[in-house]
Amino acid sequence: MSPRYTRLVDTLPATVPFVGPETQERARGAAFEARLGANENGFGPSPRAIEAMAKASGDQWMYGDPENHDLKQALALRLGVTPAHLIVGEGIDGLLGYLVRLLIEPGDAVVTSEGAYPTFNYHVAGFGGVLHKVPYLGDHEDPTALMHRAREVEAKLVYLANPDNPMGSWHGAEVIRGAIEQVPAGTLLALDEAYVEFAPEGTAPEIDPDDERVIRLRTFSKGYGLAGARVGYAVGAPGLIAAFDKVRNHFGMNRAAQIGALAALADEGHLAQTIAQVVAARARLNAIAAENGLRALPSATNFVTIDCGRDGDFARRVLAGVVKRGVFIRMPFVAPHDRCIRVSAGPEAQLAAFARVLPEALAEARQG
Amino acid sequence: MSPRYTRLVDTLPATVPFVGPETQERARGAAFEARLGANENGFGPSPRAIEAMAKASGDQWMYGDPENHDLKQALALRLGVTPAHLIVGEGIDGLLGYLVRLLIEPGDAVVTSEGAYPTFNYHVAGFGGVLHKVPYLGDHEDPTALMHRAREVEAKLVYLANPDNPMGSWHGAEVIRGAIEQVPAGTLLALDEAYVEFAPEGTAPEIDPDDERVIRLRTFSKGYGLAGARVGYAVGAPGLIAAFDKVRNHFGMNRAAQIGALAALADEGHLAQTIAQVVAARARLNAIAAENGLRALPSATNFVTIDCGRDGDFARRVLAGVVKRGVFIRMPFVAPHDRCIRVSAGPEAQLAAFARVLPEALAEARQG
Repeated sequence: MSPRYTRLVDTLPATVPFVGPETQERARGAAFEARLGANENGFGPSPRAIEAMAKASGDQWMYGDPENHDLKQALALRLGVTPAHLIVGEGIDGLLGYLVRLLIEPGDAVVTSEGAYPTFNYHVAGFGGVLHKVPYLGDHEDPTALMHRAREVEAKLVYLANPDNPMGSWHGAEVIRGAIEQVPAGTLLALDEAYVEFAPEGTAPEIDPDDERVIRLRTFSKGYGLAGARVGYAVGAPGLIAAFDKVRNHFGMNRAAQIGALAALADEGHLAQTIAQVVAARARLNAIAAENGLRALPSATNFVTIDCGRDGDFARRVLAGVVKRGVFIRMPFVAPHDRCIRVSAGPEAQLAAFARVLPEALAEARQG
Repeated sequence: MSPRYTRLVDTLPATVPFVGPETQERARGAAFEARLGANENGFGPSPRAIEAMAKASGDQWMYGDPENHDLKQALALRLGVTPAHLIVGEGIDGLLGYLVRLLIEPGDAVVTSEGAYPTFNYHVAGFGGVLHKVPYLGDHEDPTALMHRAREVEAKLVYLANPDNPMGSWHGAEVIRGAIEQVPAGTLLALDEAYVEFAPEGTAPEIDPDDERVIRLRTFSKGYGLAGARVGYAVGAPGLIAAFDKVRNHFGMNRAAQIGALAALADEGHLAQTIAQVVAARARLNAIAAENGLRALPSATNFVTIDCGRDGDFARRVLAGVVKRGVFIRMPFVAPHDRCIRVSAGPEAQLAAFARVLPEALAEARQG
């Protein structure tokens, strides 16, 4: 006799939000030449972080500090908040899981954008929430529509990424401030700022850390180049932050990752250098797109979304052609954004590989 | 206005299953001289694992493989099962959280032993399960009583650790086999074998990996000395294993930890050496107990539970005296086991520190 799963679990598919590049490599029987599909930061973490993690490897017999004390102290100082406003967790993915669990029970309404981050949707479905999706306005998430729908369905939670993934678009701080003012009573805004380090000055709004209407989520995976370490954090009102202690895996953080994130945070020079490298890589990707007669969308992230100029089937053929030639990239899942492919910023050798295979993939796709 | 939490979350305390040693160090304003409280493995991981993790530090810009393919292949080979029988996760704690989430909704019955692993209880409470506890039989968990109670309350899940924490006791394979035969229809046995590498031959039973009545949980935290890395795994029937994909954090594993666990698993010589060191350390702890007129309980783990010979208040005074002298140890939470303190096996310098402070702590405790 099978175990008796919950009624909810019985209804859930065994979905995987993303297929990893390693899975694709095993399927194709060869490693990728370039890894530009998961918005990892190929410029790598701070050498100080690498050294700190390497040194911490010998101490991995000890559990990590369940309070993440040192990292929270450093983040508090950097952000001008107190440690009581901060929760550290296993990446934004892990924190989103805890957040959804705190708020959502079967039937509760949640609002996001059609085509936005699938892992958020995965968590909402996983706790039985009912997702209401609003369309993007062009290539931007539409904060006004999100808040309107949140009011309409009395959503407990609304998700907004700024900058956005997968489109790379962004809103200035004033638009986000305006959205926060429109958050309905009883709704919490999850503001995903995973890519904010790459955005222009004036993208991240000032938010009163005691504001109970919003929780902002950030990560060491993108700007700090530590995706494999799994370190994210969130800033919110102390009551909400304290609630994470009711459900989180207190001893869930990797000890070397805690130490590496702390070292990465301290290396402001490396972050600045990374941002400059990403800016240059975006320009290079723009040029590659232009050389192929394609339009690169403006980006405030470490990836560039390239409009292939036709429909989703065409872009999927382009993607397949790029991937089969050894360059791992991804693309938006839903129309009309699936006219695009999405390519991460990375070192020149990786971008050159993309530049080499794109014309072939396009020619092949045009043959239908 | 505060966020609208679920009805369940509103009832949950912001409990922490354990207070970490770092928290205690911050409170006392000094580092511990010896760290013997969390059953960490002070003999450390395999040098090969340390080297592999150190080397992987520079690659932490990449996410880990969400399928944990390589580690599952190696574990499958070692255990004589297929990868479809294996789930890898963020320590046993993380896997227990997923398992409880898969099975337990508010009101569902769960059975464990009074005084057994608190983090399991934390997860059960966190998903609204109703815990039914049966007493130990002396210093052993009582499989017969557990299964009897599971049948009585129609439990969806029953927890049994073998060897046991916090008592260090164990049952031979035949007793566990017998318990599995007694698992009621519709109940799943979570068999926590975190410490099994330290147990005598014949402790871990042969279990048909397709047996739907049981899931066995293991970890790299204890025998392999990688507590800080957060790598656990479970062996179960493929249907149950596949269900984890419905709820787990697919990209939740630290990449260097995956690589380190793989290297640790391959170093059988180091594991054998660790076990020998733990056996010697247990003997040393037995001797320290005897020198102080105390009785050490037999142990099949990397810790020794020492009967202080009086009641819980007395043992708590002993514990406080040891801790305030710079030696981190813990003790069982509930009577009658709280007559004991629990000391992890570790290198001689750490045990010597314990040996030095124990007589003083005992003398102080006897003064009341």
